[in-house]
Amino acid sequence: MAVFSSDALSSVAYATEEILRALVLAGLGALTLGLPVAFAIALLFFTVTFSYRQTVFAYPSGGGSYIVAKDNLGLIPGLTAGAALLIDYILTVAVSVSSGIAAVTSAVPALYGHRVALCLLAVLLLVIGNLRGVRESGNIFSIPTYLFIASILVMNAVGIARWVLGGLPPAPAPSPPTGTLAPLTAFLVLRAFAGGCSALTGVEAISNGIQAFYEPVSKNAAKTLVYMAVLAVSMFLGISFLAHVLGIAPRETETVVSQIAHGVFGNSIFYYIVQAATMLVLVLAANTSFADFPRLSSILGRDGFLPRQFANRGDRLVFSNGIVILGLISAVLIVYFGGQTHSLIPLYAIGVFLSFTLSQSGMVVHWWRRRHEDPKWLTHAVINGTGAVVTFVVFVIEGVTKFTLGAWVVVVLIPLLVVVFLSIRRHYDAVAEDLRMDPAEVKVKPVRHIVVVPIAGIHRAVAATLAYARSLSDDIRAVHVAVNPEEAEKIRTKWEKWDTGIPLTILPSPYRSLTRPLLDYIDGIQQKEKAAVVTVVIAEFLPRRWWQFLLHNQSALWLTTILHFRPNTVVVNVPYHLKH
Amino acid sequence: MAVFSSDALSSVAYATEEILRALVLAGLGALTLGLPVAFAIALLFFTVTFSYRQTVFAYPSGGGSYIVAKDNLGLIPGLTAGAALLIDYILTVAVSVSSGIAAVTSAVPALYGHRVALCLLAVLLLVIGNLRGVRESGNIFSIPTYLFIASILVMNAVGIARWVLGGLPPAPAPSPPTGTLAPLTAFLVLRAFAGGCSALTGVEAISNGIQAFYEPVSKNAAKTLVYMAVLAVSMFLGISFLAHVLGIAPRETETVVSQIAHGVFGNSIFYYIVQAATMLVLVLAANTSFADFPRLSSILGRDGFLPRQFANRGDRLVFSNGIVILGLISAVLIVYFGGQTHSLIPLYAIGVFLSFTLSQSGMVVHWWRRRHEDPKWLTHAVINGTGAVVTFVVFVIEGVTKFTLGAWVVVVLIPLLVVVFLSIRRHYDAVAEDLRMDPAEVKVKPVRHIVVVPIAGIHRAVAATLAYARSLSDDIRAVHVAVNPEEAEKIRTKWEKWDTGIPLTILPSPYRSLTRPLLDYIDGIQQKEKAAVVTVVIAEFLPRRWWQFLLHNQSALWLTTILHFRPNTVVVNVPYHLKH
Repeated sequence: MAVFSSDALSSVAYATEEILRALVLAGLGALTLGLPVAFAIALLFFTVTFSYRQTVFAYPSGGGSYIVAKDNLGLIPGLTAGAALLIDYILTVAVSVSSGIAAVTSAVPALYGHRVALCLLAVLLLVIGNLRGVRESGNIFSIPTYLFIASILVMNAVGIARWVLGGLPPAPAPSPPTGTLAPLTAFLVLRAFAGGCSALTGVEAISNGIQAFYEPVSKNAAKTLVYMAVLAVSMFLGISFLAHVLGIAPRETETVVSQIAHGVFGNSIFYYIVQAATMLVLVLAANTSFADFPRLSSILGRDGFLPRQFANRGDRLVFSNGIVILGLISAVLIVYFGGQTHSLIPLYAIGVFLSFTLSQSGMVVHWWRRRHEDPKWLTHAVINGTGAVVTFVVFVIEGVTKFTLGAWVVVVLIPLLVVVFLSIRRHYDAVAEDLRMDPAEVKVKPVRHIVVVPIAGIHRAVAATLAYARSLSDDIRAVHVAVNPEEAEKIRTKWEKWDTGIPLTILPSPYRSLTRPLLDYIDGIQQKEKAAVVTVVIAEFLPRRWWQFLLHNQSALWLTTILHFRPNTVVVNVPYHLKH
Repeated sequence: MAVFSSDALSSVAYATEEILRALVLAGLGALTLGLPVAFAIALLFFTVTFSYRQTVFAYPSGGGSYIVAKDNLGLIPGLTAGAALLIDYILTVAVSVSSGIAAVTSAVPALYGHRVALCLLAVLLLVIGNLRGVRESGNIFSIPTYLFIASILVMNAVGIARWVLGGLPPAPAPSPPTGTLAPLTAFLVLRAFAGGCSALTGVEAISNGIQAFYEPVSKNAAKTLVYMAVLAVSMFLGISFLAHVLGIAPRETETVVSQIAHGVFGNSIFYYIVQAATMLVLVLAANTSFADFPRLSSILGRDGFLPRQFANRGDRLVFSNGIVILGLISAVLIVYFGGQTHSLIPLYAIGVFLSFTLSQSGMVVHWWRRRHEDPKWLTHAVINGTGAVVTFVVFVIEGVTKFTLGAWVVVVLIPLLVVVFLSIRRHYDAVAEDLRMDPAEVKVKPVRHIVVVPIAGIHRAVAATLAYARSLSDDIRAVHVAVNPEEAEKIRTKWEKWDTGIPLTILPSPYRSLTRPLLDYIDGIQQKEKAAVVTVVIAEFLPRRWWQFLLHNQSALWLTTILHFRPNTVVVNVPYHLKH
């Protein structure tokens, strides 16, 4: 299933670069450590894969970290995993799009200055496409993934073959880093390792989307998971190896993959195929977040931890709110970080590893609970336990080595989000408690209400409004606020000629305020006749052209706003459609 | 009256600089022409002053260009003058504030980089001050004007005295302008003249604000006008003369006045007094626009050429709409032009001279009409005629020499605004015609209406909403849109237990849309029972904290918006105050 793999596979496009970017701080010589670090990450990748393979079998109906952690560890760990995942879906969009556009600007350096605009365009297209309900129809969407796999594998094969045959010239000597070099400490190596761990993002996508597989789903999903891991690790190791033998150092304006492709293919058509495939697979990876983020927020909305609106599908059967919010936040991130992948990476991955840890720990509890039914429970628990411990160690490494680079934001944000989730749920619970009633006990009796109609003049719109008010109640009071006393006198005279049977009160307004005298008048009514609801009926002009709205209704709008928050007051805007 | 003079007097702070900025394009040698150009402007100043002196006598109740031109020349010239003035009030704020902040950044060069922020801060303070209804209490506001007059006159006197005594060292030799020099053509001299004509802006302020003078108003206002002209011209000529003898060329980061003050006073306290007084008087000049712009737009609003809302005073007796709009547009201009006075100047003054011309031509017609009553009419007419001809010539010079520098914007904008004024008036007239009725002929009969109550669940808020709906009508229909069929079944069961006497219709929603089935249902009702108004009563939750709004009502809001534009449909939001 190419669709779910795109997220995990695409991260090899930037993982090697992140290792080298950390190591180069200690000088070009330190870059030789890139290969051992890459091997460590490959090992980690397989550990996590085997751990997740078990989740696929245990949760054939889809086991996202939120569900697994909530089921087995409890509410708070579940919400923590949910918060971590929401943050990481946003970052996936920002990182993947930035990195995809970096593949474009590496090939066409003239576009480098426009990278933020290009990133925003890509996000906009993703939002529009997903709002229109693009189905993840495997066929079309799998092409970029297969193209990417093929082009990277071919590049690696050709590169290694040329190296073996001695025909691979080293890349142009990189300029040594400026400024003072950092000492090559264990901390720096760990930071390189943490950066490279971004290769593991997306591994969980298969266990989330398990229901999209053919029967037997678990078996097929598990198989796909292993294939995907083997492919990802071999692509990643190949890239890291070629970067090593070509002596490539990270550059500001060209990605490491682009440098390798240049080294292997020169400026031929194959180079451009690699770049195009990289760009496409990264945009596709961002697209998976546009399915995952709205789905998770709809589950959280359904459970009452996010506004209920997230749980409602729009008319096109997509979760429009989640899509728009994901697009907006990731666009802000892209602008803030100037579309630079490596500036976003320190925030990334930490949330992924937290949710890995919670999910795998949850699986350990899951097996422990099934210890009487499942004779192999201990083997399962040990595999998931290993996964949990390893990912927890990586989580700590991520947090410590990247803390000052930006990871602190995520460390602060996750508990904050959990608090927000809980507050929302507490509010909904309290409201539901207040609103609960036994239908058999509550009688619906009409309330006594008085209708107040503010009158600005004597004309057809007022006549229509009064006619409508008549149909609501027999107790109608017309009022005119005398902002202009001469005008008020004219209205009084005309009113007397008008046989409405409705009394008109002229309210003096010494300070020319429209609202104050009216509010006082309504106060007066409500004090005299307790428990009465006052319905204020206001004429509203609906003109035929949008700009004409600016010419009408400002007073009506202001009055409506002011009255809206008064208890026992209902405002009714009666539309009057203008012919002009 | 220091308040009204601040606008006219303050323009001497940048007028000389604008002359020199044009001349320096032809090289440093061309700067010697600054003095003759300044004398021509001084002559123009007196011509305009004497022309306006007559307006003051003829319109003792205040003769703004809009009123004078409309009364004597007709509607279109009146609106043209009105448009020109509105634009110039906006530019006065932008130019005066930019120039005032330039006085600050000349004295404290470290602030130069923050000049846009400082300008916006000044505009914000002016908006807030005027919204709170700062009275133009002469005493406080006259201090900066007197301080400015005194400091400039002292600077000129000391400077000239030192020059006569031979003790005035020339300013540091200015660096010659880079790039190719323009030839010193008559066109360039006229452009310098046009730039310097910004000195005349603000002359009309006294005839606008005439009612603020003591009795006999016309005599006092005329006297003030002449004093003001003498002061302004002598300050302007003094500055131009000192700029000449000091050999000063305009600089990017220091104003000409600041350079002169440095030359005369060195870095002493007197230098800083000149700069502070300049800044204060310019901010005060911007403040006069905050009185003039809202006043003119309220007159235009009262006459139906701008939205009527402009004519309404707020609760603090200020025209809040005009103040806010003036602040916003001038802030946009300041940001767009980077807070640079000389970039704004090409747009400025052209509108002023157009309104001068229209106002003085109007006065000529005024005297012609009074030719049988007033024996001196010819003298008056000749003076105003001279004013009209001279200001028209300057208007043409302004338009031609600054056209490509930005004046074209104003040339396009003024007729456009006149068209907008006329369209607004035409709309209001058409609406008034439609709405007109004879009270004796129109009967207010209640309309037959049907109340529809959408039900999201069975709870207390719905009970309250139904009770309210009961009080509106006996014909109530409860509906539930079955977005979730299981939920709908539960509601049906509960409803049957509930003794409301109101029928419940469950609307199927195969596409999970909330609005579509409801709209179809209302269509159905309206087709069956023609001429009936449908009132849709929707419960609205009012929580206690603002952020909780995000957790409720999105569906209600969406429904309200959709229904709002349907004919014969009234939406009533019944507030339900939550305890949590």
